Amino acid sequence: MPEKILVQADYILAWNEYFEIIIQGEIVIEDSNITYQGPRQERSLESFSRVISGDLVMPGFVNAHTHAAMTLFRGYADDIPLMEWLEKKIWPVEARLKKEDIYWGTLLAICEMIKGGTTCFADMYFHMEEVARACWESGIRASLAQGLIGLDKIKGMTGLKESKSLIQNWHRKGDGRITIMLGPHASYTCPPAYLQKVMKMAEQLDVPIHIHLAETRGEVEECLKVYGKTPVNLVNDLGLFEHDILAAHCVHLSPGEIDLLAEKEVAIAHNPGSNLKLGSGVAPLIDLLKKDALVSLGTDGAASNNNLDMVEEMRLAALLQKGLGEDARAIPAQTALKMATLNGSGALFLDEEVGTLRKGSKADLIIMQLKKPHLFPLHNLLAHLVYSAGSSDVDLVMVNGKVLMEKRKLLTIDEERVLFETQKRALELVKG
Amino acid sequence: MPEKILVQADYILAWNEYFEIIIQGEIVIEDSNITYQGPRQERSLESFSRVISGDLVMPGFVNAHTHAAMTLFRGYADDIPLMEWLEKKIWPVEARLKKEDIYWGTLLAICEMIKGGTTCFADMYFHMEEVARACWESGIRASLAQGLIGLDKIKGMTGLKESKSLIQNWHRKGDGRITIMLGPHASYTCPPAYLQKVMKMAEQLDVPIHIHLAETRGEVEECLKVYGKTPVNLVNDLGLFEHDILAAHCVHLSPGEIDLLAEKEVAIAHNPGSNLKLGSGVAPLIDLLKKDALVSLGTDGAASNNNLDMVEEMRLAALLQKGLGEDARAIPAQTALKMATLNGSGALFLDEEVGTLRKGSKADLIIMQLKKPHLFPLHNLLAHLVYSAGSSDVDLVMVNGKVLMEKRKLLTIDEERVLFETQKRALELVKG
Repeated sequence: MPEKILVQADYILAWNEYFEIIIQGEIVIEDSNITYQGPRQERSLESFSRVISGDLVMPGFVNAHTHAAMTLFRGYADDIPLMEWLEKKIWPVEARLKKEDIYWGTLLAICEMIKGGTTCFADMYFHMEEVARACWESGIRASLAQGLIGLDKIKGMTGLKESKSLIQNWHRKGDGRITIMLGPHASYTCPPAYLQKVMKMAEQLDVPIHIHLAETRGEVEECLKVYGKTPVNLVNDLGLFEHDILAAHCVHLSPGEIDLLAEKEVAIAHNPGSNLKLGSGVAPLIDLLKKDALVSLGTDGAASNNNLDMVEEMRLAALLQKGLGEDARAIPAQTALKMATLNGSGALFLDEEVGTLRKGSKADLIIMQLKKPHLFPLHNLLAHLVYSAGSSDVDLVMVNGKVLMEKRKLLTIDEERVLFETQKRALELVKG
Repeated sequence: MPEKILVQADYILAWNEYFEIIIQGEIVIEDSNITYQGPRQERSLESFSRVISGDLVMPGFVNAHTHAAMTLFRGYADDIPLMEWLEKKIWPVEARLKKEDIYWGTLLAICEMIKGGTTCFADMYFHMEEVARACWESGIRASLAQGLIGLDKIKGMTGLKESKSLIQNWHRKGDGRITIMLGPHASYTCPPAYLQKVMKMAEQLDVPIHIHLAETRGEVEECLKVYGKTPVNLVNDLGLFEHDILAAHCVHLSPGEIDLLAEKEVAIAHNPGSNLKLGSGVAPLIDLLKKDALVSLGTDGAASNNNLDMVEEMRLAALLQKGLGEDARAIPAQTALKMATLNGSGALFLDEEVGTLRKGSKADLIIMQLKKPHLFPLHNLLAHLVYSAGSSDVDLVMVNGKVLMEKRKLLTIDEERVLFETQKRALELVKG
């Protein structure tokens, strides 16, 4: 008999073309799926293995772009520009990372993400078997890509081989929670010939592609100098946009490129916090959404954010566009919330339906506590979620029908051990 | 015998021209003052009425501009522009506010502020006797100003009379925790003749002035049309800047006005969250700081933010300037932290020393919990406070030597009653 859980809540954030609130609703979960969502019904509670109740049930957040194990470098290099940050600080310490460091750093990220209501994330880093293991053990949902650098031919080929074995070993594993993408890092680290190899493999193995695109002004200028084209036009001309593709950042875009990204249905991961913090700029979110582009939200790595807090990211995405465009109507709460949930699941090209709570979708949900001063009084629940809430208001997290956090206590991870291991390893890494 | 408290911490955030970290330090508090701050010493614990320990002790945040009781309208009107927000939504419900509503709404704000580590705030609203009562009862420190509107002669005079009685009844009360300012709302609601009366009273009663200044582009344009001068130049020509003055917002400024504000030592309350959310724009923070202007941080009211979270405000102030100027070095963590603490106390023109923890200053301090995934590993404590922390990491709050919150439980306010009263009153107010 599959496990059957009843979740009852004062409010359910339901999706039906737009978000609506079901008052005094309930959700039935059988195994990993939602089999009922709606008003309370007469039920025999005995048929349930568990009954959970809470203030608000909503879909978990989807963090569409991060480098989880970079938590190890959180706060290690701040207030310096991207290239200096990479070359002088991050790359030297990354070169020292061992498999076990990646495992523990990823677990630290997963601790933080679960505690902040993130139920699914897209990762690009290396030693990805370790990342997959951390996801498998912790119960979170993730789409993983080995970061591929094609500047050195041997290393580039090794990366592709490792990606292939990652797909064979982990794609659709953990009850389908873990999926794999190919991760060519960026157009400035992957020459055209290498990108073509990546595309060929993506087609053969039927997996999506995850890439960094048009993150900084310098990247665009350099690409124009080397190839006579912008990064967006370069990868489009190579045919990259004919594949399922998740493009992170997309900060520096011309109007024509915005049209192109929308038309080619490129999934975009908008990372407003990281783009601000590294001085990269602000993506043209309003224009992208006007053209009906698929825009999801990501935190980027914790070394450039410096946390993995999707509530913050959602708020920042909305506030930034209102302020910069001097238009308070820009990116209303509905839009910000959709980017952080539903659009995220679309951007990860998942087979399963996540990011919404309705019959047939996966039971990836969170319960938020609402009885707190900063969420009172309650005029408008959607506004509270986007403009007032904090990630620490998340009280319970469920992924694929399994409870991963309850009353803010992690159930599948030994949090204390993770803090101990990451502190020890991080200090050793920066000591050199 | 005065109460004597010993606070021991793994880290103390100390000030000595810049922030420095004292490892394994301690603070001695006698009555309301800090009498020792430094490394641990041999002490007889018996001489202390309490010994408190924690991860990090730092100064409480100073919220330099808010309208506390507007918590009642949190989430009531979002995603609409400032003038429509004011005229169609906020002013009609504000007109129905009764004294008791202001009392409870302010208490709700104080609950939220204490829980987020704010130990002192500057408020401008009405029925300020109720606000003073809420501050007096709760133990928080505050500088209060009745919002004065001079468009109607009788109402303008009444406001001044009420301000005078507020000063007589409350200035320097509550062991000096409560101070009063005069609060001419803005140049567009206070004609020149009225501002002159305000200045005269400020001089006679020796209190500072708190005003809104250059918040929106529309305000500046309208002022130019009516007076042939920008708001900054208008109030300067009237002599306002010769007084101790706290000017909120200062978003739309010319280079000459930036020089003027710095030269005249006008204290500025920067409200990045509210300015973004209402579509007002982004203040030229980097230029103001370059000219050595005194810039503090405020949340503005909860109806336009939509919370009173100084950690968020501090982070936003830093990230925004880095991103918009495409310079990751802009507003480093030190600067953001100083704006949220020390500069706030300067901007409120307090007699007492608050915003720093050192011998002789008031014991307004908070303890932050650091053993959390989003604050691990610990490479750089200042970076963590500005870029990674959340207001819910605050574990204990002390104002004027009295503990107001411990283990996140409020000790001087009946939180549950406040939530109940504000929910009831807020719904009645918007029902009309």
